[in-house]
Amino acid sequence: MVTLGVLISGRGSNLQAILRAIADGRLSARVAVVVSNIEGAPGLAHASAAGVPTVVISHRGWPSREEYDAHLVGVLRAHHVELVCLAGFMRRLTPVLIDAFPHRVLNVHPSLLPAFPGVDAQRQALEHGVRVAGCTVHLVTPTIDAGPIVLQACVPVTDDDTVDTLAARILEEEHRVYPEAIRLVSEGLGRVEGRRWISTGRTAPLSDADGRG
Amino acid sequence: MVTLGVLISGRGSNLQAILRAIADGRLSARVAVVVSNIEGAPGLAHASAAGVPTVVISHRGWPSREEYDAHLVGVLRAHHVELVCLAGFMRRLTPVLIDAFPHRVLNVHPSLLPAFPGVDAQRQALEHGVRVAGCTVHLVTPTIDAGPIVLQACVPVTDDDTVDTLAARILEEEHRVYPEAIRLVSEGLGRVEGRRWISTGRTAPLSDADGRG
Repeated sequence: MVTLGVLISGRGSNLQAILRAIADGRLSARVAVVVSNIEGAPGLAHASAAGVPTVVISHRGWPSREEYDAHLVGVLRAHHVELVCLAGFMRRLTPVLIDAFPHRVLNVHPSLLPAFPGVDAQRQALEHGVRVAGCTVHLVTPTIDAGPIVLQACVPVTDDDTVDTLAARILEEEHRVYPEAIRLVSEGLGRVEGRRWISTGRTAPLSDADGRG
Repeated sequence: MVTLGVLISGRGSNLQAILRAIADGRLSARVAVVVSNIEGAPGLAHASAAGVPTVVISHRGWPSREEYDAHLVGVLRAHHVELVCLAGFMRRLTPVLIDAFPHRVLNVHPSLLPAFPGVDAQRQALEHGVRVAGCTVHLVTPTIDAGPIVLQACVPVTDDDTVDTLAARILEEEHRVYPEAIRLVSEGLGRVEGRRWISTGRTAPLSDADGRG
């Protein structure tokens, strides 16, 4: 059973998907803490309703991103977090956090990376005119949206799609693959090799899965 | 019934897929000529077996790409070609050919563009570590692999994929979507708007489909 910390900035619909997967028995995990950088983020109420402790750490007033992240690491460690899951956390992370949880920070991005990194991925996809879109769960590295890919899922783009209809279709897939990717990483069913996640299909202890634990 | 010219350099498996789609009645078209820049390309024999005239225009010995393309345009025009389909044609086209068939040159590329343009797309995808790959049928513009996207299809990448197994899985999808994309373009079921192909789902005459005919 892996101990998760989930970081949100808004409604945290992927947090809810993770909590559902745990409740359904699809994911053997416990969310030890939900951290939001935004006071009153709707996801905080969902976490509380599920009995999950919440912490708000405003991003305002810190002398540097590094000091913010150092404080965040302290909060996650205090809750014995083993795996950090970004769920709509609108902050760029520094190596201070990433190195504190080597190969143990996951993010979900609403595009088939490496296509359309960064903000407004769904709009980028529509404006580019792609006919297939999707989402990517990846390990977080200091380069935004470029870490090893654990899972991806694709969806069609329809002729009458707007950013909202496409985003909703992609979000359904995010909710499906994010808990599954958490399971793969937490059960050690793969390892990081260069810039790739190599699925091994063989369980290894969480702390040894990347040879650094 | 649209008149096609198909350009190949090798086995031309997509040519065979186009010929099958025509034979099956999925595509109302006639392949008027198959052009190869390589003498003895295996696809030439397939074309001949199907009763399709073939022409070899070696790329060697031309003073410029433009003069090669001008000759190619002459051959295509002589066969009354309306829509040019690249099927593994390993030559970069110049505006001489592209402008002779405005929005009427199609290519299929073995990746989900804009990811992995250029050569060895399947290897690029594997090395990047994506979990979803695919193919793209697009209109050809002078910028390689960047023209308006007509259709895309995705395939999973499996843990034990090699470049060959992934390429074979993608190729099956190429064979499925390329004839369908030819149908969409030739029946005028879309138009080009900026860098996008906008599917309209409404038939327009081929010559007026892009407002330039």
